[in-house]
Amino acid sequence: MPTHGFSRLDEAISVVASATRVELESMSVGLLEAVGLVAARSYESPIDIPLRDSSAVDGYAVRSVDTFGASPSSPVELELGSECVEGTAVRVLTGDPLPPGCDAVAMDEDVEVGNGVIHVYKPLPSYANVRRKGEDLRRGEAIVRRGQVLRPWHLAALAAVGVDRVEVFERVRIGVLVVGSEVAEPSAGLEAYERGLVLNSTGTLVLAALRELKFVEPRYLGIAPDDPREVARALRDCIDELHAVVTTGGTGPSERDVTPRGLEEAGGRVLVRGIAIRPGRPTSAGVLDGKPVFMLSGFPVAAYVGLRFFALPALARALGIELPRPRIPAVMGSRLASTSGYTCFARARAELVGSELVVEPLAIKGSGNVSTLLRANCIIEVPEGVEGFEKGDRVLIDPLWWSP
Amino acid sequence: MPTHGFSRLDEAISVVASATRVELESMSVGLLEAVGLVAARSYESPIDIPLRDSSAVDGYAVRSVDTFGASPSSPVELELGSECVEGTAVRVLTGDPLPPGCDAVAMDEDVEVGNGVIHVYKPLPSYANVRRKGEDLRRGEAIVRRGQVLRPWHLAALAAVGVDRVEVFERVRIGVLVVGSEVAEPSAGLEAYERGLVLNSTGTLVLAALRELKFVEPRYLGIAPDDPREVARALRDCIDELHAVVTTGGTGPSERDVTPRGLEEAGGRVLVRGIAIRPGRPTSAGVLDGKPVFMLSGFPVAAYVGLRFFALPALARALGIELPRPRIPAVMGSRLASTSGYTCFARARAELVGSELVVEPLAIKGSGNVSTLLRANCIIEVPEGVEGFEKGDRVLIDPLWWSP
Repeated sequence: MPTHGFSRLDEAISVVASATRVELESMSVGLLEAVGLVAARSYESPIDIPLRDSSAVDGYAVRSVDTFGASPSSPVELELGSECVEGTAVRVLTGDPLPPGCDAVAMDEDVEVGNGVIHVYKPLPSYANVRRKGEDLRRGEAIVRRGQVLRPWHLAALAAVGVDRVEVFERVRIGVLVVGSEVAEPSAGLEAYERGLVLNSTGTLVLAALRELKFVEPRYLGIAPDDPREVARALRDCIDELHAVVTTGGTGPSERDVTPRGLEEAGGRVLVRGIAIRPGRPTSAGVLDGKPVFMLSGFPVAAYVGLRFFALPALARALGIELPRPRIPAVMGSRLASTSGYTCFARARAELVGSELVVEPLAIKGSGNVSTLLRANCIIEVPEGVEGFEKGDRVLIDPLWWSP
Repeated sequence: MPTHGFSRLDEAISVVASATRVELESMSVGLLEAVGLVAARSYESPIDIPLRDSSAVDGYAVRSVDTFGASPSSPVELELGSECVEGTAVRVLTGDPLPPGCDAVAMDEDVEVGNGVIHVYKPLPSYANVRRKGEDLRRGEAIVRRGQVLRPWHLAALAAVGVDRVEVFERVRIGVLVVGSEVAEPSAGLEAYERGLVLNSTGTLVLAALRELKFVEPRYLGIAPDDPREVARALRDCIDELHAVVTTGGTGPSERDVTPRGLEEAGGRVLVRGIAIRPGRPTSAGVLDGKPVFMLSGFPVAAYVGLRFFALPALARALGIELPRPRIPAVMGSRLASTSGYTCFARARAELVGSELVVEPLAIKGSGNVSTLLRANCIIEVPEGVEGFEKGDRVLIDPLWWSP
């Protein structure tokens, strides 16, 4: 598939990931501090949990064989005792180890008690109301892999096996440099537009998207004018303290390559110059002191697409972080035309209609229009070999929505 | 539908939300500080963006009518000028306002320039390569609603309209109290199991799940023994500084209602005593000083289900926070039996198979087994009126997976 002289997205990711030499330090933090950070080592359970067969309820431990044939009209009578022998029941509370010889527990609700005996009204299968040894976690069972983002259940399982500090990677320090003499900070106010300036929505979008990732520490490097020397200076000033840099702007054909030239002037090397994605064709990348520099478009939507589908996957691969991409099937609610030879990312809106997720494309073009992201709740990827989708086609979407 | 004497989930949510009298203070923060917090007011665009029709490319502004009939073999010749009159083209750069009289821009790549003229090789439709006034945001158009969680695009759009500080709600301070004489902190280590104790995985799970919500500030209140006076004291000590409390444990039939009795002893009132959900039947709730107290199970999975599907929705409704629940259609890969009269939440694992998301149920029971959440990546809700699902049934799942 020709890609109009641009790099293929997957190749660009590989090139950057393999040219990068960055290592994250690891550190030990409390369980709750670790939420959303990345595990720096794998953890397995050192023991069986439960440690032994134990009662799942309050009731009476019995030999299940003694209850066979029990029914409401002919209950089985068992003697209360302290050891589990034939015809005997032993009082147990939730969590108590199962007394030796027993293999089931009759729940309080299911028995009648009185005069040193209990009556059981239904037969208990073996291990009824018993939590089996190792039922939750077996000794040696994996809890979390090195490189996984730590979620609540990982931490709960670590707590259960007596781990109260976790080895995690330090946060990934990503610098964000906005390139463009025409860009002003939002504090300049609406008058900036009268002076032909644009307010910094692209930088805000990239920084905010990075801030949503707990394992990332974004550092704003400010706005550099359209001057490679200024870009080079901004990159050199910060690179020692960072693991990666993301720039926006200065990559388009009309912008005389300010950002790639700045990268080279800083002593870096351009690896990828233009990627066959839409929006985001000018997306580029290079390396400076072994650290990746992702050069995204100055347009907000193109920059977001470049960040989400190129820079983050490449950086995660370089750093050994598992960055899942859980795509969701949906049905096209209308036609979407694309451009062959490009991987296209259309903003779209998916809604549940009965038991189908129906997705309406909003836009591929208009990458300067951040409002399309307000209206969208997902992105449809159209692979480079596909001309588009017809109404009714099944597609895969990448959600933009938020959920708890 | 009978619910075995328990409250229906939706009714329980309404009862708690309407009995609660909590207000969040609002505060002004910088755009990037606002990521993941909740908007305390609605914002609309005060202007059209772009402010006026402007060029989307570097090129030449023209009257589209002058290019009609242009072709590679018979290009149209236009004179370079400074005003847009018939037969003239005006140099423009990306973002420049369209000169009066022009209605299209010929891109640099599509023209030949020389000797004070340009040659245009194809006809331009009206507004070709023009960003229309208000194309991104129209004056008065909504950017974000009060109560929405702020995402990157909200902040980028606010930046674009010159807003650099956002009114957000203070973080919701939720206390987490673990009730149970048998619970020890993870730092007690594995020996605790030998002494018949359990390590605090349920409290860890709840706290970690709350920590994933940027707009929540969880406060750990420690472990209270099975004594209503101790529970009451723990609740009273903290309630003034909190917006809500979540407890785990002390609600089951065998635990002699330690937590609800503690709530009453603290001067609170029980509103809901048991909910027809599985896992999580003992889930209860009440109110203390007008603030909701959610009493969840001591078992980790039941507590998580109670938190996600009961406590958080009720709290969000009480506080006016939009808490979306984007459910995803999937196809059952095997049968799932449920219990009529209960809303059941089965842990399950969904995987893409071709263009279908196929979901395999893992467990409804075993709510003490946190490892099922490690293996699961979603939850299937089985409504109370449904006996279960057959292989091939279309269902809706709630994802547990993480995505950027």
